[in-house]
Amino acid sequence: MRIGETHFRTIWMESDPGIIKVIDQRYLPFEFRVKELKSAEDAFQAIKKMVVRGAPLIGVTAAYGLYLAAFHSSRKDWCEEVKNAGALLVSARPTAVNLKYALDLALNEVNCAGSREGMNDRLFHLAIRFAEDEVNRCKKIGEHGVSIIRNIYEKTGKPVNILTHCNAGWLACVDYGTATAPIYLAFDQGIPLHVWVDETRPRNQGARLTAYELGAHGVEHTVIVDNAGGHLMQNGEVDLVIVGSDRTTRTGDVANKIGTYLKALAAYDNQIPFYVALPSSTIDFNMTDGKEMEIEYRDRSEISNMDGWDSESQSVINVRILHETTAVNNPGFDITPGRLVAGLITEKGVCKASEEGIASLFQNENG
Amino acid sequence: MRIGETHFRTIWMESDPGIIKVIDQRYLPFEFRVKELKSAEDAFQAIKKMVVRGAPLIGVTAAYGLYLAAFHSSRKDWCEEVKNAGALLVSARPTAVNLKYALDLALNEVNCAGSREGMNDRLFHLAIRFAEDEVNRCKKIGEHGVSIIRNIYEKTGKPVNILTHCNAGWLACVDYGTATAPIYLAFDQGIPLHVWVDETRPRNQGARLTAYELGAHGVEHTVIVDNAGGHLMQNGEVDLVIVGSDRTTRTGDVANKIGTYLKALAAYDNQIPFYVALPSSTIDFNMTDGKEMEIEYRDRSEISNMDGWDSESQSVINVRILHETTAVNNPGFDITPGRLVAGLITEKGVCKASEEGIASLFQNENG
Repeated sequence: MRIGETHFRTIWMESDPGIIKVIDQRYLPFEFRVKELKSAEDAFQAIKKMVVRGAPLIGVTAAYGLYLAAFHSSRKDWCEEVKNAGALLVSARPTAVNLKYALDLALNEVNCAGSREGMNDRLFHLAIRFAEDEVNRCKKIGEHGVSIIRNIYEKTGKPVNILTHCNAGWLACVDYGTATAPIYLAFDQGIPLHVWVDETRPRNQGARLTAYELGAHGVEHTVIVDNAGGHLMQNGEVDLVIVGSDRTTRTGDVANKIGTYLKALAAYDNQIPFYVALPSSTIDFNMTDGKEMEIEYRDRSEISNMDGWDSESQSVINVRILHETTAVNNPGFDITPGRLVAGLITEKGVCKASEEGIASLFQNENG
Repeated sequence: MRIGETHFRTIWMESDPGIIKVIDQRYLPFEFRVKELKSAEDAFQAIKKMVVRGAPLIGVTAAYGLYLAAFHSSRKDWCEEVKNAGALLVSARPTAVNLKYALDLALNEVNCAGSREGMNDRLFHLAIRFAEDEVNRCKKIGEHGVSIIRNIYEKTGKPVNILTHCNAGWLACVDYGTATAPIYLAFDQGIPLHVWVDETRPRNQGARLTAYELGAHGVEHTVIVDNAGGHLMQNGEVDLVIVGSDRTTRTGDVANKIGTYLKALAAYDNQIPFYVALPSSTIDFNMTDGKEMEIEYRDRSEISNMDGWDSESQSVINVRILHETTAVNNPGFDITPGRLVAGLITEKGVCKASEEGIASLFQNENG
């Protein structure tokens, strides 16, 4: 997507084949910084320190990390070095399924009997393919979702107000994003629209990342606190909700960023369509009830402290916003039951958030 | 309520009759500071700069401000001076109904033909009475609400988990609070309980004030982001919700801090009783539909910036948490329809949040 006049992806190579570049997302929206990755260790640190985040982007970064290990190796045992890099990279985020999947695939390609140059090429093309696959999946989600937005516009003749939660945007992917893909495609097709961006406490991914990426691409948007969406829905100021998903059951229950469930309830209470955009790789065909999902509880510091721009020191600093002794509870995700979801927007099409709906699109994967 | 071993109110006089003391709430929870008010101008500034906040406390502070004007006047035209102080004080928060009500009552007592000393006495006793009335109303709300908590405890035999939103606590009143009154009384009676405190973006009154006052009194509590309550309710971790109200229609629709509606929806979806505690003075007997209420839209800075404790400078500083150009929308309140409310806890008893329910308690005021 665009940042000003330039089209960016979250990860790319320029002229030097030994350097992979990524947007350093830790500084957004305060500063736009590009970070150079020159080794597998750099890629590992980028994942670990959240220079890059979002499951799709993490997988691609790891694949490029493996390539960098092969490219820069000057040792005879380059093959050993690549395998060690693989072990290092997978340890950067032990719970990330995408990351392990990408690395397993790539490591399968490693042929120690061949040449290092051949290995370079294979790993490079594999990383490129991972990236392209991610982009294409997101673009297809966009193509399937854009008709929902267009239908509303054709019905009302007014700019379509879309609410989104967290960042399921291109910054979490390679391009387009998931929940944002229909929005970018609609915008690029000239459909008038405006996005309500949930701040998304505690990590503020909406306020920091979604607002940044929509603004950089030129999409009109407004940040609201997570408390405000219900009021806007009651007052007819939301036409449509689109969120992402971390994991979806075969029955259409959706695990997504904490707070998603509250917005789904409000949308349902006000008869506003609530859609979930997701690549089908996040559907868990073995799970029939969202209640089975284990919810991750995260650090106290996400709630007790806050990053912000200090105008005096002209830098991002971290301040404490709670009393030192205050206890917190920090669930990272919640489960939105399929009964509250109008539909799932996948790369294969749109379906009901139910066992029958999902089966109609994914017959082969089912069961 | 207690702060450590000492019992405090939010406003009080010690030995010097020319000084009224208040807790400076701007520094909570980072620092506990007491501010001295020595003039009507001091009281005006305390209201204006939010040293004190909450409708009940503002009304009492203004009444004490009028008293201070009379007490410190050394001029012959002291009566004129008191009237001017009244005009100044009412201008501190033009939309605060309580404030105007308290000052109108007090100014009615001003008799320019009498002595200044007599006037002092009258205004002092009036301020005391306002304060005592507030305390008694809150205490009665507590007495009516505590049985709801006790019933749950007797049924489950486990500590009662109560969720609250914003600060409808004693810091907003003179003592006890409204939503917190049943909690403090239950705690003081030895009923085991734990409070989930919504952070309450954008002004964080839950994280800053409710958490502080519960902690200072010794009540076990945990701060959560506003997004988390739905998940906790889905998982059986909330037995009861109690919130306050800024204004309630004769039909039981409740205007309260933005985000209240979302918690009411989640409570309803999970069959958890959702109660609203309020002094009957906030019932608007002329209003039949919450949709008629005008919602206040507040400053961008509440969302774009955040106060926090900077460990380096050992002081509270303000940081920017949005991109400079990001637009925000900041509704201060939302409307929770009576259909989602299990009951209203008032100083006259508990009733259904419906026209019949309210009429059963307030027959004379009705119509």
